[in-house]
Parts: sequence; structure tokens; C-alpha cells
Amino acid sequence: MQSELHRKHFYAVIMAGGSGTRFWPLSRKTLPKQFLDLAGQGKSLLEGVLEHISALVPIERTIIVTHKSLAVETLKRVPHLPPQNLLAEPQSKNTAPCIAWAAHAILRRDPEALLFVFTADHFVSDGVRYQQALERAALAASEGGLVTFGVVPNRPETGYGYIEFGDEIGPGEARRVIRFVEKPDRAKAEAFLQSGRYLWNSGQFVFRAQAILKAIEAHMPELASAFEPLASAKEEELPGLIEMAYAKAPSQSIDHGVMEKAQNIWVVMADFGWSDVGSWTTAWELAPKDAQGNVGEALFVDARRNLVHTSARKAIVLIGVEDLVVVDTGDALLVVPRERSQEVKEAVQRLGGLFPEVL
Amino acid sequence: MQSELHRKHFYAVIMAGGSGTRFWPLSRKTLPKQFLDLAGQGKSLLEGVLEHISALVPIERTIIVTHKSLAVETLKRVPHLPPQNLLAEPQSKNTAPCIAWAAHAILRRDPEALLFVFTADHFVSDGVRYQQALERAALAASEGGLVTFGVVPNRPETGYGYIEFGDEIGPGEARRVIRFVEKPDRAKAEAFLQSGRYLWNSGQFVFRAQAILKAIEAHMPELASAFEPLASAKEEELPGLIEMAYAKAPSQSIDHGVMEKAQNIWVVMADFGWSDVGSWTTAWELAPKDAQGNVGEALFVDARRNLVHTSARKAIVLIGVEDLVVVDTGDALLVVPRERSQEVKEAVQRLGGLFPEVL
Repeated sequence: MQSELHRKHFYAVIMAGGSGTRFWPLSRKTLPKQFLDLAGQGKSLLEGVLEHISALVPIERTIIVTHKSLAVETLKRVPHLPPQNLLAEPQSKNTAPCIAWAAHAILRRDPEALLFVFTADHFVSDGVRYQQALERAALAASEGGLVTFGVVPNRPETGYGYIEFGDEIGPGEARRVIRFVEKPDRAKAEAFLQSGRYLWNSGQFVFRAQAILKAIEAHMPELASAFEPLASAKEEELPGLIEMAYAKAPSQSIDHGVMEKAQNIWVVMADFGWSDVGSWTTAWELAPKDAQGNVGEALFVDARRNLVHTSARKAIVLIGVEDLVVVDTGDALLVVPRERSQEVKEAVQRLGGLFPEVL
Repeated sequence: MQSELHRKHFYAVIMAGGSGTRFWPLSRKTLPKQFLDLAGQGKSLLEGVLEHISALVPIERTIIVTHKSLAVETLKRVPHLPPQNLLAEPQSKNTAPCIAWAAHAILRRDPEALLFVFTADHFVSDGVRYQQALERAALAASEGGLVTFGVVPNRPETGYGYIEFGDEIGPGEARRVIRFVEKPDRAKAEAFLQSGRYLWNSGQFVFRAQAILKAIEAHMPELASAFEPLASAKEEELPGLIEMAYAKAPSQSIDHGVMEKAQNIWVVMADFGWSDVGSWTTAWELAPKDAQGNVGEALFVDARRNLVHTSARKAIVLIGVEDLVVVDTGDALLVVPRERSQEVKEAVQRLGGLFPEVL
């Protein structure tokens, strides 16, 4: 089988640099979203991602890119990761520099490498379909295409970018992408949903390392030239060059910088139960619930559809409340209606002056 | 002045044996209600009671009666109390045995003693009127009457006992009591409120030590005989005799055992802002509030009329919630609508099996 032939060239790139103050007080600057068990699965989102990928890509060919301040914590939580597979960014400059570095680093090992690029903080419920989708995307990418995953929308969400696809069907049943659309307003989102020709952009990609670097050269020449010295450098020169590359590199997403401009873009249907776990609302939706719709360890008395999270053994009693998020971490406590949990981010900023230690 | 003449015979008896699971998780078996700052005054209820009394009765003549398990904690919190003024009950048997013991103990010091008997876990907002009411009650009690304090009701409360008073006016403007009524149903409570002839029983009393022991002899002979040996005992015999007295004594309140049956009962209007601080609802009512009606240290974002209590420095954020009680103690957390806070007691009992350490 063709895909079997390619497998030894499969590399996973996990972008694990996020912060995620929307999950405060559970998430902190030093404990971002990917390290949390936000889907109630008994493991962190990062662990879940690694587990799903491991069926297709061994840990030896899995690269995690994160900010240097999270490097130690990441290695601690993924002890089987070969240390050279952790790329610690000197600065956070969005996804384009992150992918450029990963592509260069992997190309040094394998000029034929094909990259699966994932975020570390999403959740996938159907591992088997996920792997099937990845294999189809690999087929589409093996011929030089830049492949993204599109989630079939089930509501007029205004918080995601959209992908419009055309009729042309390529390898792996991938659809030709007509255009990327930034987060739309409500009216547009409803029109997209109606049309049946738009998918949510999940921010995950598959492409050959050479293909993405070529596309970066064409559409982000500044970024390409910042990282160009890495291609011919000796191993011992790399740390200094990377420092310089990040200093020069523009801060931009791969979506804006490349995918929206390049021609050879394909989308594979992400029919594997994907969620970006963007708020406590989503966390509640994903987690196992009791008969009254409550999530978490607490004594619920006439209480419904609440989410409780605590970091320690603690006697928590909720009486007569509904649709609340209650998160306790010893040094901090949040109480907010589930549907208003997106307001946490702003509130935490106001807290900074009084409680710098809990940010 | 006559009351000046009597002052050297004034004794305060503070009944400080309560448990108060209604304030869980702040209150515990070993940290009952009287030790908590439930009125938001920066001091415990017990400290507040002692402060008000000190204007009338010096600490040398102030007796605190509590269960032996709370004796050490009580002395720790009232370090200026002479240790011999702490009566540590071997068993909790309601208020009648408690008052019988206190009366015997004080009579040994002063046969003319006049007792002010208070609960330790109430709150008084107007200290000056409180002292005036106590002086009037002392006048009424100095002639042998048993005097209670009656709070003018402002709502048809079904949680308190009531006192019906008559037309006869005695010394200190005290009114003759016609009868005590147990906690009424709603219809009766409304009739009482309408009539203008009923007061709430605040569970506080003033009487001469000899008068109350005589009344106990008449109406609770079993209790009287249990404590009778104390009258003529030597100091060193007391501990054993008290142990025996409590073993024999019936468990009954002084209201049921004596006040409801005796003849010479008077009531003084308690116009001093009395509250029994019976629930978190009351605690919220008494405490200082911010402009949105919130009580406690937290970041309140679009949140109104909440009460937050925490035992430690903790970053607490409430967003978009109203009329909630949120109490955090490190090992336990309670979230309940203010108007349902009376359900805490029952919930805590259900918690016992899982978290015996937080009861």
C-alpha cells in the first residue's frame, strides 16, 4: 500500500505554546490549557493528542514545539519524548515561525518528511476516524499539496475561521479549498452553514516539509529569509541561529501567512469529533455527567448541569444551583454561570494587581 | 441609685456550648458559631457579647459555660477570663442544667448574685440600648422575678418561640408574661404579629441565682435534686459531683422546664437590634456591603448581593451571579443560594461518610 510506503517519513509536529487564561484558575501562565484534563478523560489534552498520534507516528518522530518557559514542564509530562524532539521557542510568534522551524529541523533528518501539524490543546473523541482522516490527508499531501482539516459545522459559530471548498476532489478524497474566511459575523456564519460548502478551520495541517517551506518562501519571504541560515548550518551553530531567526521573524499565523494565499490547498473532512475545548462550556459538554447533568466531584443537592473542578481532596457542596462553573485551586476560586465563562479572561486581567501570584 | 447598689452582685453567664452546622463549612464541631465573625464586625460573636457585657459586668464576674471539648479553645479566645470562671460541662444537656450549675457556682461566691444569662452566638447592634435594657431587667429581677427579653417581631417568623405579654407593668418597665408559645405555624405567627401582644423569645434571661434555683426546685425537681449536692460540697468534691449531676440531669431547656411553668415571669422589650444570626441569610443582612450588595473579599464582576467568606488569602472571582453564598475553608467549599442556606445542615449530614474530617 502506498501509505505504508510513506509511513517512515511521517512526522508529527505538536504546537504546544498556548496559554489559555480562559481556563483560569486551573490554567496559569506556567500551566497552560494543554496540560489540563479539560475533557474529563483522566488525562491532559496533550496526552490525548499524543495517544491518538502514536498509532500513526512513533514518539521518535514526534516533535513538540513550545515556548522555552514551558520546556521543562513539557518534558516532565512527556517523559518518553526524546529531548532533541522538543523545540523550545525563544519567543512566541504565532504558528508560522513555529512551523518553519519544525520543518527545517525535520528536513535535516529526512528530506522526504511529511508533517502532521497539530495543536496540543484540542480534543478528538473518535481516535479511529481521526487516524483514517490523517491517512487520507497524508495521501493528499504526498503529492505536494498543503492539506488542512475542516470540521462540518453544526451551528453558526462566529468564533472560528471557515474554509470554503470546491468540487474538485483530489487524492484521499480531499476537496480543493477555494478560500479561507476569517471569523465571520452572525449573518455570514448562518449563510455559510446553510450553503453546505463551508467547514470550520481546525488549525491542523498536513504537508511535506519541503512543500511548506517552498510556500513560506513564496508567500512569507521575510520569514523564509529569517530561517534560511538553518538549512546549511552546523549542529553547534543552531541555537544562535534560532535565536536570531525568531528575532527577525514576523509574528503571524500559518493560516494568514500561507494557507490563505497559496494555490495548492486541500481540505479533508474532520469527521472525528473534534473540539478546540475553547471554554468551560465546551469542557462541560465533553465531560461525563451524572443523571442531573453535573460534572465533577461534589455533593450536588438539587443542583443541575454544573461543572465543578478542584485540584485537591475537598468537600464541595452545591445546593440548589444550576448551570454554574465552580473551579477551586487552593489559591483561587472561580464561580461563573457556564454560558458566561468566556468572561473569565477579562476578569483575570483585573485580578493581576491584587493577586499576581495566581496568574 | 438603686441599680448602682446592686452592681457588685451582677454576674454574667454566657452559654457557649452551641455547634451550629448551619454555618458549615466555616463552623465545625470544634469551631462552633460563637467563635466566628458572622456579623462582619472583625470579631467573633462571642467577643461581641463579652464586649457589650463588659460595660455592666467585669470579666471577674463573667462565667462562660461550654462543653468540655470546647474549653481549651474558649480559654484561648478569651485569654483574660479567669480560668475558674469557665465551667466545662461533661455533657451537653440543653440550657436548664447549664443554668443550674452556673447558679450554684455563683451562689458559692455571692448569695445575693443576680445573673444575666446570654447565649454566646447572638448579635446586638446597639450596645447602649442593650445595656439600658439589661439595667431595666435587673430592676425587675432584683425583686425575685424571672425576666426574659422579648424582641418586637417585624415579620411572621415561624423559626422562633413567642412570648405573650399582659398589661401589668412592673419594675424596669417590664411586662408581665402571660405565656410562652413554641414555634408557631404561619397562620399563628401572622396572628401574633397582628395582635401586637407577642414578642420573640430571644433566649436571654435575668434573675437572681436564688430565684432561678427556687423555680427549678418547684418545676424541675429531678434537675434540682441532681445538682442539690453542690450546695454544701467542699471545693475538692465538686468535679465528681458535677460529673454525677450531669449524668442524672434531664436534658431540657430552661424555657420548657421553668419559664413556661413559673408564675413570676416578666419580659423586657429587647429594642437593641438583636439577631440570633441563625443562617447565612442573616449573616449577609448584618454585614457591611459594597454598592452591589456583595459581602466579602472577592472580585465581583456583574455580581450582586452575594456573600463570600474565605479563611485564607485567596483570589476569588464571581462573575454574573446573584444572591449566592460562597464559603471556602481550604478543605471544604459551599455554594448555595442565600435563601436556601438553611438546607446546609442536612447536606452536611450526608457528607459525613465521605468527608468525616470536615464535620
